[in-house]
Amino acid sequence: MRKIRAALAQINPTVGDIEGNVKKIVSYIKKARTKKADIVIFPELAVTGYPPEDLLMKPHFIQDNIDALKEIEKASKDITVVVGFIDRIEGLYNAAAIVSNNMTVDVYHKINLPNYGVFDEHRYFIEGKRFPVYNFAGINIGVNICEDIWTDKGPVEVQALMGADLIVNINASPFHAGKASFREDMVRRHARECKTSIVYVNMVGGQDELVFDGGSFVADDKGETTIRAKQFDEELIVVDIELGKKKGQLSAKKRVELKSLLEKDKFTGKVKIPFVEIKEKKTGVRKKKNRPLSVEEEIYGALLLGTKDYVLKSGFKGVVIGMSGGIDSALTATIAVDALGKENVCGIFMPSKFTSKESYEDASVHAKNLGIKFHTVPIDDLFGSYNKSLAKHFKGQKVDITEENLQARIRGNILMAFSNKFGWMVLTTGNKSEMSVGYATLYGDMAGGFAVIKDVPKTIVYKISEWRNKKAGRELIPGRILWKEPTAELKPDQKDSDSLPPYSLLDPIIKAYVEEDKSFEEILELGCEIECAQRVISMIDHSEYKRRQAPPGVKITPRAFGKDRRFPITNRYKSY
Amino acid sequence: MRKIRAALAQINPTVGDIEGNVKKIVSYIKKARTKKADIVIFPELAVTGYPPEDLLMKPHFIQDNIDALKEIEKASKDITVVVGFIDRIEGLYNAAAIVSNNMTVDVYHKINLPNYGVFDEHRYFIEGKRFPVYNFAGINIGVNICEDIWTDKGPVEVQALMGADLIVNINASPFHAGKASFREDMVRRHARECKTSIVYVNMVGGQDELVFDGGSFVADDKGETTIRAKQFDEELIVVDIELGKKKGQLSAKKRVELKSLLEKDKFTGKVKIPFVEIKEKKTGVRKKKNRPLSVEEEIYGALLLGTKDYVLKSGFKGVVIGMSGGIDSALTATIAVDALGKENVCGIFMPSKFTSKESYEDASVHAKNLGIKFHTVPIDDLFGSYNKSLAKHFKGQKVDITEENLQARIRGNILMAFSNKFGWMVLTTGNKSEMSVGYATLYGDMAGGFAVIKDVPKTIVYKISEWRNKKAGRELIPGRILWKEPTAELKPDQKDSDSLPPYSLLDPIIKAYVEEDKSFEEILELGCEIECAQRVISMIDHSEYKRRQAPPGVKITPRAFGKDRRFPITNRYKSY
Repeated sequence: MRKIRAALAQINPTVGDIEGNVKKIVSYIKKARTKKADIVIFPELAVTGYPPEDLLMKPHFIQDNIDALKEIEKASKDITVVVGFIDRIEGLYNAAAIVSNNMTVDVYHKINLPNYGVFDEHRYFIEGKRFPVYNFAGINIGVNICEDIWTDKGPVEVQALMGADLIVNINASPFHAGKASFREDMVRRHARECKTSIVYVNMVGGQDELVFDGGSFVADDKGETTIRAKQFDEELIVVDIELGKKKGQLSAKKRVELKSLLEKDKFTGKVKIPFVEIKEKKTGVRKKKNRPLSVEEEIYGALLLGTKDYVLKSGFKGVVIGMSGGIDSALTATIAVDALGKENVCGIFMPSKFTSKESYEDASVHAKNLGIKFHTVPIDDLFGSYNKSLAKHFKGQKVDITEENLQARIRGNILMAFSNKFGWMVLTTGNKSEMSVGYATLYGDMAGGFAVIKDVPKTIVYKISEWRNKKAGRELIPGRILWKEPTAELKPDQKDSDSLPPYSLLDPIIKAYVEEDKSFEEILELGCEIECAQRVISMIDHSEYKRRQAPPGVKITPRAFGKDRRFPITNRYKSY
Repeated sequence: MRKIRAALAQINPTVGDIEGNVKKIVSYIKKARTKKADIVIFPELAVTGYPPEDLLMKPHFIQDNIDALKEIEKASKDITVVVGFIDRIEGLYNAAAIVSNNMTVDVYHKINLPNYGVFDEHRYFIEGKRFPVYNFAGINIGVNICEDIWTDKGPVEVQALMGADLIVNINASPFHAGKASFREDMVRRHARECKTSIVYVNMVGGQDELVFDGGSFVADDKGETTIRAKQFDEELIVVDIELGKKKGQLSAKKRVELKSLLEKDKFTGKVKIPFVEIKEKKTGVRKKKNRPLSVEEEIYGALLLGTKDYVLKSGFKGVVIGMSGGIDSALTATIAVDALGKENVCGIFMPSKFTSKESYEDASVHAKNLGIKFHTVPIDDLFGSYNKSLAKHFKGQKVDITEENLQARIRGNILMAFSNKFGWMVLTTGNKSEMSVGYATLYGDMAGGFAVIKDVPKTIVYKISEWRNKKAGRELIPGRILWKEPTAELKPDQKDSDSLPPYSLLDPIIKAYVEEDKSFEEILELGCEIECAQRVISMIDHSEYKRRQAPPGVKITPRAFGKDRRFPITNRYKSY
């Protein structure tokens, strides 16, 4: 049986930190060498972090990234390294360097550049045109990058036709719930159809709104997953990959097949095959697959990692959270503690005359359960001061949304004062249902550095909270928070349901309209009244200006707000 | 002499308002017919407004835009119409419909899709592959769209080689200072080199951060501008275009030339030439060119139109502005009055113990000069209330930036209260110098719906203010505001120069770093100290999180913040 020992280096680089990333890469190369790996594989753009966005416009940034390859070359004695970086040849390429024995033997250029959803790769990169297959002591290896594997009749098929025994696909693939298994199934189908083993190496870590979830894996040439890394954590997996029967030279028939494919896809360029010495065969070192995660585990894992990396990579240590006694701030505080440790989280309770006794009990018990700092700052005096200062100007005007917003903004100011004074980042607590319909106050509860659950619909907020309590084996989040009716407590006896349809109805409308671009007729089929659907859609459309000023938060759905959904603020289109 | 009477319909559509835009288009067709025009030409995506962004993901939006063409067909009796819309054939095209005598005779698909700067056209559209030339009663007309004219060896050259006597280029070309003359020179060069008249029709109007500045024009086949529309205003210009000697059929030589060009650019597809009846020749109706604007006129015109359209198209009538007695709020208020009328502008002066007597005098005299509502809301009591509420928690801590930010945030809250109570949009007053280095308070002076001068560097703020006073023939903005030293008045004797280098040095560094991606070495050549350059660059990099939560504002430079500069917040790259 032919074998190759591969090390999957599922690392968490930081955008822009070329020096730090290269240090990490070099340390993983050393570990892989210790474990006698033939080849060590890093994610897409591991050198720069992903996505570097408009840093790519800076010529000195590109140069620093190219210079950094020298450090990797130096570290590559007796091992082959595949690592993502930016190549520059009269333009930029999203590239993979194949570095072996102290030299860069070839550079692969990504062919399929995604320019949808959160991706802007046509803004920066030129499409590659070559798909080399490397002969590695008798084993043929094809390298390609992320989106390259998402098309049929693309680089994977071409490299397989050219005789690749193994395809190495390096990634920075952003998470949304359910994507990991979808992705793995797709890659396994390729492996089965091409009769070629595939090593899929993903980045891990949070970058602004994105989380890269790891979950790297190997699929054998029958399409079975033989090894799977953890999601949401760095890991070096060293594994012996058994390769099928040698594919050998291309048959005449295959050449013809390949030729038409090449022409069809307008690929040009020659195939370069450098030879590299393979080391002696060894027995495997890692055989256990990590199990796939449940939906709740996946979402919670993404929220935790996204929050942790945003806070820490931004240079903060602690966070401060307005705890209202409601479910959203309860879940946010719980995630913060799991991500940063209880000593780095502070809860502030800011009651008004509209705040119930139960809210205080629930918030304070929860804070105690979490073991965090917890302060109470009442806002009634402040609210009184504003009313006094404005009385002359608002004479004869009715009490309205102004006074509700004022309370929320006083709370925002208090949290920001704690942030400024102690260097803690404010985490905001709004969920996707609220962000969609604009049930939130700009500069009030929307004020803060990171919006942990902004892409989590309210119905899922409940599910995850229940899951977290179950995992804790106790009511870590007090039970009443999970079943009492949601309220903003900004006026007497206020309930969310006064202003909004029930969340069980609202959330499917939001999904259909925001994430799936369904028409009005299709939305009515969800079973809501015409007037209700119109009102929800209108609220979503008219809240774009608020979302544009919201802090970033973790993407967990196929379409989050932010780079994922680019909507005009000035917009008179009516979908109903 | 062969002539064609063309009507350049420089209109201001609203994104998403398909019904309203088509009504406007039909009314302009009627006006053009009254003036006996042979052809009436509308801007790029006139039917939907530009850029529709992710509205393009909604199938029903596309369908509504296609259905709208029927209204235009109905209105096109005895006249030919060129109008921008979205075509759909297994994907979307940025298209121009050629509608004549109640039917759509052809559809042109934009070939060059911009995907840089503020543009995302690869996100939405497929590239066109055909470049038809229409025979119009013996006159050959080539139609193309915006970016198509910005490349040599592109659609313009091909259509000219195919015998086009006239090129019609329709646009939604976003403004930055100096672009109009650059654009006109480029088009004139094409006309001269191709020996073909070119009609350039641009959109006018504000859309979120963009302003389309109009300035449509005709260049004759010698490359001279024969007519020029106003900038920043709707206009229908009817003009008789004299065409050169008939180009006739393609010569054998030209066919060969064309063939190689076609192959080079990978263009395919047949040329379709529908015949349209031309009306009898008439004498010209418009011969006067509008003069090009000065830089100050251009920038002020863009700020005025951008503000007016953002406020009015968002459904607001009035605005409220915090007037500090400083230059930024003075210029913002002046623009607001010019854009919306003095009866729709309210100034709020919010003094603290750090506010000077001069500040009050300057703000109140200016408000009086403008004739606007002006209220004073002191903030000391409110500031005292916050300090009291926070005293217990901040015990033993020094007074620092927290207290400065608190004052700014109290002012933000007051302005937002006026906004909520009276339905006025808050205009923020920060300039580009401040936005760059983060010399502004989130949820404080950054709180509001539109940031009028966020892309105007401080040095230009002064220039434009001086120009506006000169135009008024008096000190509309009190003279002292123009010469006194800038201060935020958030602590005793504070001056901008305590925290920042002089603006005359700061602004060139910002331009070099933000707009031109210059390296550290190149920035030092501007004549600043190493430590100063390091500090400015570091401040710019570390303020990205603030900018991400800023309201939109008018783009007037080649690279504004916003869609124009997509920067990671989490970013450890150091340019120095």
